[in-house]
Amino acid sequence: MENTISAIAKIETKGYGASGSLIGGETLKPMEFERNPPQADEVLIETLYCGVCHSDVHQVENDWKNTIYPCVPGHEVIGRVTYTGEAVTKFKVGDVVGVGCMIDSCQHCSACADDEEQFCEHPHGPTMTYNGYFMADGSGYNTFGGYSSNLVVKEKFVLRMPESLDIAKAAPILCAGVTTYSPLNHWGIKAGDKVAIVGIGGLGHMGVKIAKAMGAEVTAVTTKEEKRGPALQLGADHVIVSENEEEMKQYAKYFNFILVTIPDPFDITPYINLIHRRGNLVTVGLLAPYKAPLNNMELASQARSVGGSLIGGIAETQEVLDFCAEHNILPDVEMINIEDINEAYQKMKDEDVRFRYVIDLKSIK
Amino acid sequence: MENTISAIAKIETKGYGASGSLIGGETLKPMEFERNPPQADEVLIETLYCGVCHSDVHQVENDWKNTIYPCVPGHEVIGRVTYTGEAVTKFKVGDVVGVGCMIDSCQHCSACADDEEQFCEHPHGPTMTYNGYFMADGSGYNTFGGYSSNLVVKEKFVLRMPESLDIAKAAPILCAGVTTYSPLNHWGIKAGDKVAIVGIGGLGHMGVKIAKAMGAEVTAVTTKEEKRGPALQLGADHVIVSENEEEMKQYAKYFNFILVTIPDPFDITPYINLIHRRGNLVTVGLLAPYKAPLNNMELASQARSVGGSLIGGIAETQEVLDFCAEHNILPDVEMINIEDINEAYQKMKDEDVRFRYVIDLKSIK
Repeated sequence: MENTISAIAKIETKGYGASGSLIGGETLKPMEFERNPPQADEVLIETLYCGVCHSDVHQVENDWKNTIYPCVPGHEVIGRVTYTGEAVTKFKVGDVVGVGCMIDSCQHCSACADDEEQFCEHPHGPTMTYNGYFMADGSGYNTFGGYSSNLVVKEKFVLRMPESLDIAKAAPILCAGVTTYSPLNHWGIKAGDKVAIVGIGGLGHMGVKIAKAMGAEVTAVTTKEEKRGPALQLGADHVIVSENEEEMKQYAKYFNFILVTIPDPFDITPYINLIHRRGNLVTVGLLAPYKAPLNNMELASQARSVGGSLIGGIAETQEVLDFCAEHNILPDVEMINIEDINEAYQKMKDEDVRFRYVIDLKSIK
Repeated sequence: MENTISAIAKIETKGYGASGSLIGGETLKPMEFERNPPQADEVLIETLYCGVCHSDVHQVENDWKNTIYPCVPGHEVIGRVTYTGEAVTKFKVGDVVGVGCMIDSCQHCSACADDEEQFCEHPHGPTMTYNGYFMADGSGYNTFGGYSSNLVVKEKFVLRMPESLDIAKAAPILCAGVTTYSPLNHWGIKAGDKVAIVGIGGLGHMGVKIAKAMGAEVTAVTTKEEKRGPALQLGADHVIVSENEEEMKQYAKYFNFILVTIPDPFDITPYINLIHRRGNLVTVGLLAPYKAPLNNMELASQARSVGGSLIGGIAETQEVLDFCAEHNILPDVEMINIEDINEAYQKMKDEDVRFRYVIDLKSIK
């Protein structure tokens, strides 16, 4: 008997969330709430691990001015299926699965047709795993994410976890992995390309590993001398410390592709100078203006381009999970209990984490 | 007897140039100077027509802070070969030929090897047709351009004029043509693509014609209501007047590719909003910073890119001449005599030209 939950029962859930009163340091607190019961095409997932993404901090602190409180973050979730709606065919009770940044989208627009649900053209966009719009019933915002004991997700947005991936470490692939894999994939990185990854944090450390597995010569660019060793340990062929002007000069016009993962406004000009003729720079993570205007002289004089990229579609998220399994790539994580989350946020803001916190959700129950 | 000029004779040349004293309105004046005699791999060209490019105005007025006076502009030149060096094989006396933005480059770097001499990696870059560095003899700056009675050019940088092109009109293909063709070509514009050309002047009017000939659905974007009719006459399928916010909204996320030809700093944001998911915007002509910082939210939210492009290589310049001949494309030009050049500059600054002035160089002799 797989389907043992009444179709109408609400799902009792324990979580950690922000109430909206962020003054005073106590950012996230224990919360209890109910989820809607799974519909026919949805699964219920008992959560096991949840990665802590820098965007969780942005969202909780309302940096993008769109946060709805209470806010329960978490969009790098690994768990086990405990119930499947009657129309579900891909998963069965007991399957270990992943949930990334989205749990639904319109499925009717050209973006959804192109497997780019992150660009869903529904007026509300796709349903983000937290702080998102309930698309299925149109009942408005606010979804609650993976800092919680369970999730209810449409099966199309549930990822199959390859058996060889260590589930205690794999959660960050679901956002940090696909966010870096997607631009490297769409801009066609291949063996022999010279790739720089700027910012060696949660995203950047995955970027180094993935670009390396694609066959590129990979250079890690970091702000700090003390990150040189750890960056080399990740597999980077070279490291540039961006404060070192001589090193930056030495790599002028060098890279075919630069992936920038700096999460806060920065001056893009020094990085543009590193791009080779007809090369590209793509920034992920920054959802705000750069610090200074682009100089088209710098772009035109080498026919360079600057772009942005946003997570990845569901098919691409499955692709990066499979890619990581094939290439033995795992995020470097530090496991924490949920009660340590506020301290973890502070350490992330202080750039004092190597490279991703993962919450052991046993601690929430 | 083709080679009737002594190998050591200097070439007497009449031209029009700026002395450097630009105050008072008399920008360009008659000048006489000597050119070095053709070397073995060079040809001497009696000039016939020269297009007037907006960059001539920038250069004469030292907008890029690199002008060396006296400055004799002109890099859209059509003429007739009157002498060929003994090693010249591609041309003979009497041939009608074209000269574009460059007359030499190092021929040893990776850019030259890739037929992208505009990005030549020589410390001085390629030798521009005017205000350029004499690469062959390393004797320093300053080349004199096509507002003159003759040119001496390395045969590799001389273009073959297809017979079917009207040489009284074709000169602007040598800069305006290749400057717009190159990005449309490199970004792979094909039948069915939705392309916008922003700024319908000397460059933009060629962009409309070329993109249309590539099979794209072409929209002209202009600042002025009164340019709507002329833009449609060029072959545009639609026209947007950029001051009209409703029209701009209507085309949000519409275009796969936007080619911006605005020559002065502008705010790029309203145009970014017109780019479709995974589309590109490329600016030509502007060699300066944009007015305001790019917002990576606008780029990332649709995986858009913004790039720059600079003229084109010599092979690509030949390609666009042949493309224009094949598709019966000619610039829309207004013929002037050289003594009208200062008035023409003023009209260009007032945006009162449709669409390109060409100097009949009979008037210089």
